Amino acid sequence: MNRFGNKFRISIFGESHGPQIGIVVDGVPGGIPLSPDDFTEDMSRRRSGASGTTPRKEADVVTIVSGVFNGHTTGSPICMTFMNNNTRPSDYEKFESHPRPGHADFTATRRHNGYADLRGGGHHSGRVTIGLVAAGVIAKKIIEPVSVVAKISEIGGFNPWDDALAKAAEAGDSLGGIIECRASEMPVGIGEPFFDSLESVISHIVFAIPGIRGIEFGDGFAASKMKGSQHNDPIADETGKTLKNGSGGINGGISNGNELLFRVAVKPTSSISVPQHTFNFYSGEVEELRAEGRHDTCFALRVPVIVEAAVSIALADLLM
Amino acid sequence: MNRFGNKFRISIFGESHGPQIGIVVDGVPGGIPLSPDDFTEDMSRRRSGASGTTPRKEADVVTIVSGVFNGHTTGSPICMTFMNNNTRPSDYEKFESHPRPGHADFTATRRHNGYADLRGGGHHSGRVTIGLVAAGVIAKKIIEPVSVVAKISEIGGFNPWDDALAKAAEAGDSLGGIIECRASEMPVGIGEPFFDSLESVISHIVFAIPGIRGIEFGDGFAASKMKGSQHNDPIADETGKTLKNGSGGINGGISNGNELLFRVAVKPTSSISVPQHTFNFYSGEVEELRAEGRHDTCFALRVPVIVEAAVSIALADLLM
Amino acid sequence: MNRFGNKFRISIFGESHGPQIGIVVDGVPGGIPLSPDDFTEDMSRRRSGASGTTPRKEADVVTIVSGVFNGHTTGSPICMTFMNNNTRPSDYEKFESHPRPGHADFTATRRHNGYADLRGGGHHSGRVTIGLVAAGVIAKKIIEPVSVVAKISEIGGFNPWDDALAKAAEAGDSLGGIIECRASEMPVGIGEPFFDSLESVISHIVFAIPGIRGIEFGDGFAASKMKGSQHNDPIADETGKTLKNGSGGINGGISNGNELLFRVAVKPTSSISVPQHTFNFYSGEVEELRAEGRHDTCFALRVPVIVEAAVSIALADLLM
Amino acid sequence: MNRFGNKFRISIFGESHGPQIGIVVDGVPGGIPLSPDDFTEDMSRRRSGASGTTPRKEADVVTIVSGVFNGHTTGSPICMTFMNNNTRPSDYEKFESHPRPGHADFTATRRHNGYADLRGGGHHSGRVTIGLVAAGVIAKKIIEPVSVVAKISEIGGFNPWDDALAKAAEAGDSLGGIIECRASEMPVGIGEPFFDSLESVISHIVFAIPGIRGIEFGDGFAASKMKGSQHNDPIADETGKTLKNGSGGINGGISNGNELLFRVAVKPTSSISVPQHTFNFYSGEVEELRAEGRHDTCFALRVPVIVEAAVSIALADLLM
Repeated sequence: MNRFGNKFRISIFGESHGPQIGIVVDGVPGGIPLSPDDFTEDMSRRRSGASGTTPRKEADVVTIVSGVFNGHTTGSPICMTFMNNNTRPSDYEKFESHPRPGHADFTATRRHNGYADLRGGGHHSGRVTIGLVAAGVIAKKIIEPVSVVAKISEIGGFNPWDDALAKAAEAGDSLGGIIECRASEMPVGIGEPFFDSLESVISHIVFAIPGIRGIEFGDGFAASKMKGSQHNDPIADETGKTLKNGSGGINGGISNGNELLFRVAVKPTSSISVPQHTFNFYSGEVEELRAEGRHDTCFALRVPVIVEAAVSIALADLLM
Repeated sequence: MNRFGNKFRISIFGESHGPQIGIVVDGVPGGIPLSPDDFTEDMSRRRSGASGTTPRKEADVVTIVSGVFNGHTTGSPICMTFMNNNTRPSDYEKFESHPRPGHADFTATRRHNGYADLRGGGHHSGRVTIGLVAAGVIAKKIIEPVSVVAKISEIGGFNPWDDALAKAAEAGDSLGGIIECRASEMPVGIGEPFFDSLESVISHIVFAIPGIRGIEFGDGFAASKMKGSQHNDPIADETGKTLKNGSGGINGGISNGNELLFRVAVKPTSSISVPQHTFNFYSGEVEELRAEGRHDTCFALRVPVIVEAAVSIALADLLM
Repeated sequence: MNRFGNKFRISIFGESHGPQIGIVVDGVPGGIPLSPDDFTEDMSRRRSGASGTTPRKEADVVTIVSGVFNGHTTGSPICMTFMNNNTRPSDYEKFESHPRPGHADFTATRRHNGYADLRGGGHHSGRVTIGLVAAGVIAKKIIEPVSVVAKISEIGGFNPWDDALAKAAEAGDSLGGIIECRASEMPVGIGEPFFDSLESVISHIVFAIPGIRGIEFGDGFAASKMKGSQHNDPIADETGKTLKNGSGGINGGISNGNELLFRVAVKPTSSISVPQHTFNFYSGEVEELRAEGRHDTCFALRVPVIVEAAVSIALADLLM
Repeated sequence: MNRFGNKFRISIFGESHGPQIGIVVDGVPGGIPLSPDDFTEDMSRRRSGASGTTPRKEADVVTIVSGVFNGHTTGSPICMTFMNNNTRPSDYEKFESHPRPGHADFTATRRHNGYADLRGGGHHSGRVTIGLVAAGVIAKKIIEPVSVVAKISEIGGFNPWDDALAKAAEAGDSLGGIIECRASEMPVGIGEPFFDSLESVISHIVFAIPGIRGIEFGDGFAASKMKGSQHNDPIADETGKTLKNGSGGINGGISNGNELLFRVAVKPTSSISVPQHTFNFYSGEVEELRAEGRHDTCFALRVPVIVEAAVSIALADLLM
């Protein structure tokens, strides 16, 4: 199911080592200004190269294939593509016999009858999220004045974290992290309970991002340890503003006009140069595996802009 | 959006103080044995009356309106209803002027143009989950031999917790809790990435349950503090069994054949007899509110069977 | 797939000889006045008893189970049910061994693994359309000022047709007919090409009505015999009004502001007392079959209000 | 809504005079052999150049962007694109002021807030159907051994028709036609009533093809003039074979194992060089319009392969 959304409808395609990654966005009204320059900032935030992220370099320049004319959306589907220039003919066949721990090698092989393209993770690669970020650029325009901001709040359990990152890189190991996301200027009334509660829709798309292990809204897991008299959050004025926002801006699955607030847990990068073990499906024995390739020490560092995109897409779908 | 699912398709209806709560289940194949007795156990687990739960008593006897003939499903939609016998004409109008903290009173009023039925929480009441449990009974038959079991693992931060519960009840306060859910006998290959990853679909329906604040899979939030060399999970044999199951039975959004494992955080019951404050939308002032009605000290105690139902429904939809 | 619609979402349930037929309508905004009296006229138009229709009598009184409070919709799902009082324990088992020509007996049996409820056609009975008419009553309110009117234009190839009808009834035979449907006050711009063209969405729901054999818009099949210079339809003024409306009010799958116009062909009633032949799946031989039961000489007479409901539902879904 | 399908899911994009037309097909299992050569025959059938069709020449060579590796589908989304090489910078702006009769110029302009790309019909052009034909090539592989064949049965009301075509071309006029489509080797049980009857799903996608005015199944409109004793169709043997197939292979919305049979009416090409009139939205007066460009005398000639593709897509979605 490579599509999402009822009104702001996206369809994603492409593999890490195929010629292009892309996304089709359907449902965008005609008349929204859109140019390749609009993508520069978010692409740059997502791109590799910062400390702690993979040395694979891609220009990540968007090609707008359809749906934009004279600098404005036309109301027809917007297809956007990105070239994969910097692929390396890696020994991907190994991953079918020796599926990497923590990767989709084993599950994708089984899911697709043995025909999955495993090169660089194929369609399961984090590279596919470039399409999500591109769609997010459009979604952010649609949801204005709602403004979504996601930031790293913790890396490897530390805040700040520079030293931890350097040590992990040196050891050939990796780190996870926590991302906090807030959306301000939320109107009251967004969310479609029973089944499309605001938390349901946001968590649905956020868990599409590879490597997410958990999500919590407002007080989150801490709420389970509170008394009602501590967690309850008095309404303070006629706008619906509450005193503590412990529900993360949502009641009964519907936005209450306060800041939307949630956190996601990102696992440490699976590919590490520390030796690991895995089962060799050809020999039938457990063997040592040493991931070579180019990898992020902490791919969580690249996730905030992806989370922003995901939430903006979800909100665009609910707000339209 | 009161429907869920592409293959196992459910539509929920009813209000806490209306005549009936019900659910329509479409997509169930013909020939599955089904009788009212099949519902007894799960209804009993969900029902009020246990220590820590509301004294409102409902018989919760299912009426199968359609889709079953001669003791078997017919392949046509199965409508199941439950009478609301034990309603009380409460002073629900107060909730429009004085929306209760932590409830959907304010958001539902605004979402539905001022016409929401707020009596007992209306369509946002936990009572509506009875339909979910009923659909879960059918889903559990469909997903066999997969077996889903959810249990309370913590109440108010304690394990065990009897004393904490008694103290909170005495104080007129409430507690939250954590529920752990496991599904065994999972086949490899369930999940539809990119957007319908197994985590996406499960979290979508789990966050439809009122009062959930967070969800985490496998190592969950703890994974964000681990190194890759700690979190990575070697495949140990040709079935795909891993040594630690830190990913909760899922890689790349697809089941890997290990036990599916996740935890959800449930907030403390919002309705407490401890005095609270809320904004009076008629007078324009903050006033004291004391919830009377009949409420659970810890509604988390009733949530395990609802989580089981939700996950079984999600799995039925993916497995069919 | 017993549901339809993205915004005005309906789920239908029930069997001809089960206890109730019903429909759940989700997505209706709060605040629309709705009472059982609103259903009287359309139910009466659909009901049996007119010349040429079955003598089975049903009161067809709606029960509003949910989603309406104090005479207005609440924004929550509206479940409406109708009792089946006038069922007869007919020898339905015969239909499994001797499927009736033109009925769903054979296909439903095979589709549902032999467990379909064939009594009176079960879920495939025209009786199920009562739910559609009920949802249509709500849809008609939502699409105002658009007004949908469907009428019989031909019965058995004749116009008028009283004599033909009497003769067919006398002979124990049946007749089909043609229904013409018009929607006035259509706004410009309704329809979601490429795949949800206005014709696509209307024909989708119209072909859900049992017994429809064809649909044509505007000049319809006659257009295939015209030259472009005859069929083309000049725009005459700034409202988009055209001179001939040969496209039935639609260009490129989108309403053009002219009257929406289409015709549907309804087959003759399958159940006739004229002896017919069918294959006996138990004996393996072709045998004579004489349908007894109570049947319409021309069920097309009851279809106009069902077509109106179907189109109103489709338009409500597109207009919301 | 530029997507179709629940299991075999397609998303179409592109404009007549944009750089590329394309389609994304999601849901195709891994392991199906697929190469560019597989597209040659259907592309050639659809392509312009035959007598009676437009002189615009396009190579129509497919580029497979994703989802295929080592000559087989991978289970990930298949994106296929086609270059638009032969575009001409036509005076498209005229179409906004002088919308062409029978085209989507007026409706698309209004639907998309004045920002639609009208060049050559933009996203409403018949050129977009190239994506449909491409998806059809894959669908045809999936539905094997079901075999779909569509043929012209009538042009301008004539059969055969060569002379009529030559005369219309000479006069600068155009002709419509009727296409008959048959699918053999249909299994029993395909179709998802109530709302996704086989006729519903087929007509839904067939009416997405530009220029279709009607569809009829089996005896079609003629059935409305028959008596039940004439139209009813005895089952003749244990496979469900009927004697006349007047229902076109469908009973109660479900395939009955006989040949699927339907006809569609195609209007005459709207663009003709015979002078026409239309309203000038700038001057406010009706003016003469003479379509220049390159157009088909009878685009119905190109429609059979498109109908085949559409039906194959619908069947793939229902059969998977």
